[in-house]
Amino acid sequence: MKLLVKDMDIATGDVRVVIINEKDAALLDLHHEDRLLIKKGKLKTTAVLDIAESNKAVPQGHIGLFEEVLDALNAKHNDAVEITFTKKPISIQYIREKLEGKELSYVEIYEIINDIVQNKLTDIELASYVVANYTRGMTMKEIVSLTKAMTETGSVLKFKKKPIVDLHCIGGVPGNRTTMIVVPILAAAGLTVPKTSSRAITSPAGTADTMEVLCDVTLSPKKLKQILDKSNAFIIWGGAVNLAPADERIIKIEHPLSIDAEGQMLASIMAKKASVSATHLLLDLPIGKGTKVYDVGCAKHLRAQFENLGRELGIIVYTMLSDGSAPIGNGIGPTLEARDCLWILENDSLGPEDLRQKSIEMAAKLLELTGLATEGNGIVMAESILKSGAAHAKMMQMIDAQGAKIKNSNQIKLSNCKYTIHAKKTGIITSIDNIAVAKIARIAGAPRDAEAGIYLHKQKGTRVKKGEKIFTLYAKNSQKLAYAKEAIKQTTSVVIQ
Amino acid sequence: MKLLVKDMDIATGDVRVVIINEKDAALLDLHHEDRLLIKKGKLKTTAVLDIAESNKAVPQGHIGLFEEVLDALNAKHNDAVEITFTKKPISIQYIREKLEGKELSYVEIYEIINDIVQNKLTDIELASYVVANYTRGMTMKEIVSLTKAMTETGSVLKFKKKPIVDLHCIGGVPGNRTTMIVVPILAAAGLTVPKTSSRAITSPAGTADTMEVLCDVTLSPKKLKQILDKSNAFIIWGGAVNLAPADERIIKIEHPLSIDAEGQMLASIMAKKASVSATHLLLDLPIGKGTKVYDVGCAKHLRAQFENLGRELGIIVYTMLSDGSAPIGNGIGPTLEARDCLWILENDSLGPEDLRQKSIEMAAKLLELTGLATEGNGIVMAESILKSGAAHAKMMQMIDAQGAKIKNSNQIKLSNCKYTIHAKKTGIITSIDNIAVAKIARIAGAPRDAEAGIYLHKQKGTRVKKGEKIFTLYAKNSQKLAYAKEAIKQTTSVVIQ
Repeated sequence: MKLLVKDMDIATGDVRVVIINEKDAALLDLHHEDRLLIKKGKLKTTAVLDIAESNKAVPQGHIGLFEEVLDALNAKHNDAVEITFTKKPISIQYIREKLEGKELSYVEIYEIINDIVQNKLTDIELASYVVANYTRGMTMKEIVSLTKAMTETGSVLKFKKKPIVDLHCIGGVPGNRTTMIVVPILAAAGLTVPKTSSRAITSPAGTADTMEVLCDVTLSPKKLKQILDKSNAFIIWGGAVNLAPADERIIKIEHPLSIDAEGQMLASIMAKKASVSATHLLLDLPIGKGTKVYDVGCAKHLRAQFENLGRELGIIVYTMLSDGSAPIGNGIGPTLEARDCLWILENDSLGPEDLRQKSIEMAAKLLELTGLATEGNGIVMAESILKSGAAHAKMMQMIDAQGAKIKNSNQIKLSNCKYTIHAKKTGIITSIDNIAVAKIARIAGAPRDAEAGIYLHKQKGTRVKKGEKIFTLYAKNSQKLAYAKEAIKQTTSVVIQ
Repeated sequence: MKLLVKDMDIATGDVRVVIINEKDAALLDLHHEDRLLIKKGKLKTTAVLDIAESNKAVPQGHIGLFEEVLDALNAKHNDAVEITFTKKPISIQYIREKLEGKELSYVEIYEIINDIVQNKLTDIELASYVVANYTRGMTMKEIVSLTKAMTETGSVLKFKKKPIVDLHCIGGVPGNRTTMIVVPILAAAGLTVPKTSSRAITSPAGTADTMEVLCDVTLSPKKLKQILDKSNAFIIWGGAVNLAPADERIIKIEHPLSIDAEGQMLASIMAKKASVSATHLLLDLPIGKGTKVYDVGCAKHLRAQFENLGRELGIIVYTMLSDGSAPIGNGIGPTLEARDCLWILENDSLGPEDLRQKSIEMAAKLLELTGLATEGNGIVMAESILKSGAAHAKMMQMIDAQGAKIKNSNQIKLSNCKYTIHAKKTGIITSIDNIAVAKIARIAGAPRDAEAGIYLHKQKGTRVKKGEKIFTLYAKNSQKLAYAKEAIKQTTSVVIQ
């Protein structure tokens, strides 16, 4: 059937969609979400069909095209195009089989993931895949296949040096910016650490957001190889190098449903590690409210799963269970967290002790795991690298290589738009709520406004006197500060007893 | 936050969506599929958030509104509106609980179904509900709740007379237009039969499409009551009276995924029966390729499920297992099927015997079930009502009441645009493929073009000589006929051995 183009004057940015009038759809026996082949001269493309009920949207005899399809066909308003029915991607059949409870093979999972990356599946199809994995569960064989498929449908960074060390913390604990201390310690010890990090999705800061306060985190693969040859390490935003790109689309479905399927989480994390060719991985599982690990039993189960998956992928995984009941470090939000990290690297007494200790423990474990330190001697080695200034020097080298912005904690400027909460009574801080603190910091503007966030003057377990400062809120402007103050009123972020 | 309206100049016809630029979304910490409250003066409405990555779609400081939201706010291009974050519907929490495997209560299911009917859930949310029901399965208690919720969120037709008789055939067999013979037999016997029927979704004709060849099928509830008082019966399109409207949206999700969840099917069918206050239901389960009932075991299981559900709803259900291996009747497509029905009611020898026999058996069962005939005497009674012309007279009365278009088989005109397939060899017709025949008839134009379809000159099991007519294809124009001829080449619709 020949139809005239209606330029919808908007990009979908997603799966390619075309719209035809319901009367034309009926004539061709076409249904919602069918696939069409659209031809204009020698140019052709496939797209998903949406059906308009009103003539206002798309009148009969016309076809509504969005920017991506217009570009693919080099088509303009009122051009004639030819449409024919075409089959749905084979991956939809595999999704159906998963719905039925079948275990999928590597080839089948690869096909689904590849179609996700190529933007060939609709929200309904993708949601049914995500939900099927969630409700049917995944076998370890499927999780291995998923991890490999997610890795192979993106870029893979390959380096000559071995071992390649990586670390990861399962999120949910505000602050906790260990990566920016552990990586320079390990690199100073001579290890290769190509660290790719994420930006915050639901938290006040990701490692990429925090590192970006100090230097650039969006670098080309070519530049990354040069840096690694020179400094042994980098800390960048993984999104810039297209590692395991299926993850982002899957999260877009999981997030509105608040689904976090275990198999999917395992695969998403490990695919990022396989994408940098990691040989050794330290995994931090913080246990506590607001984290993904609600108790020790859950942590032990996840540990076994990650270690099994690591074995299948040829990655040595060591899992550390840690206390995730309250924020770690004093700063929450990119700039405040970057300052904590610099203070620790500078051996400044302002550096938060809990973050310093945890970072040393993590670095120690990787030094032992890679054989650079003998068992039980990692702590001493990591501490000496930090105290000697070697870790600081390495971080400065890394920052320079990535285009330095800030190299000294003194250079960090905080917003004047701030508000401090004081203790209403004398007592011990028995809890600081991860979820409440993260929400307040986000409403104050973090991570979008790097300087926004919360600085904790006191940590969980410390004694405070009535009137002492508990925390200070920072925002870019007074309106955002007002929003965040309102959020403070609505939640119980800090409990004194 | 105050934003300026961009009129997107299109209706979504579905859940209300607004679009803001990703930069504004980041400022307010808003995510894809979040719910927003949009206010203009005293008018307000809630909508689902979509996020635009490009300035071309929606620039920063603006909000893209579709027709439904523009109308609700009485807003025009460049008007200022105020947006605030608002909670997602509680039904999404219940969907999540179903994902986890929890059995849902009546109240929870009602909330979900009501939000579906009110267009408050997105495709992703709705797909996850449909898939959760499919993969987790539903208990009988949940199916009962779902049926009641689907009934109560639509219109319910109430009538003074009792019993109220209904019948239903699980689809998949082309032809098989028993309803238009059974209903007049029952009504002639004095029973009340308020028959609501569907239009075809994937088949060449629904009962509503076929009845519409003879008279109007879109009537108001008020008019329906008048008709029922006078003629005891009607056959109309259920869609016009808003019975169990959730069904349509759920089908829109199930169809692209080729999902047909058993619990959902049970509830959808029985909700339509409860919506006409039926007291007695005859359910035909045809077993065969292309139907929903692939073998006798499956049929017996479905029988038990339907009978249980009927008991819970106070509807007496009798289930008949029938042969669904090939089309029933000779005509396939609205006009051709209507002609078969008229021939049978007119006691014309051209009426297909298989359709006549099956209709008599079905009518007989309902006559016995309601006590109008003693057990074993239903067949004789039904046959005498048909042979005496009483059923025909009743049908004429019904057609008149519904605005007659055609009252005699002689008035039926077929298209001159036709093509006949002849036997390539002598032998016995061992199979007529339901799926292939339905597809060909649809491509020829059925049900949209009422006169399009297939007329079977020979049925399954009959002997044919080489060169004899097998079936004739009818279409509205030569192009559609050509499409259908092409489809015949690509499938094996009739096998002679």
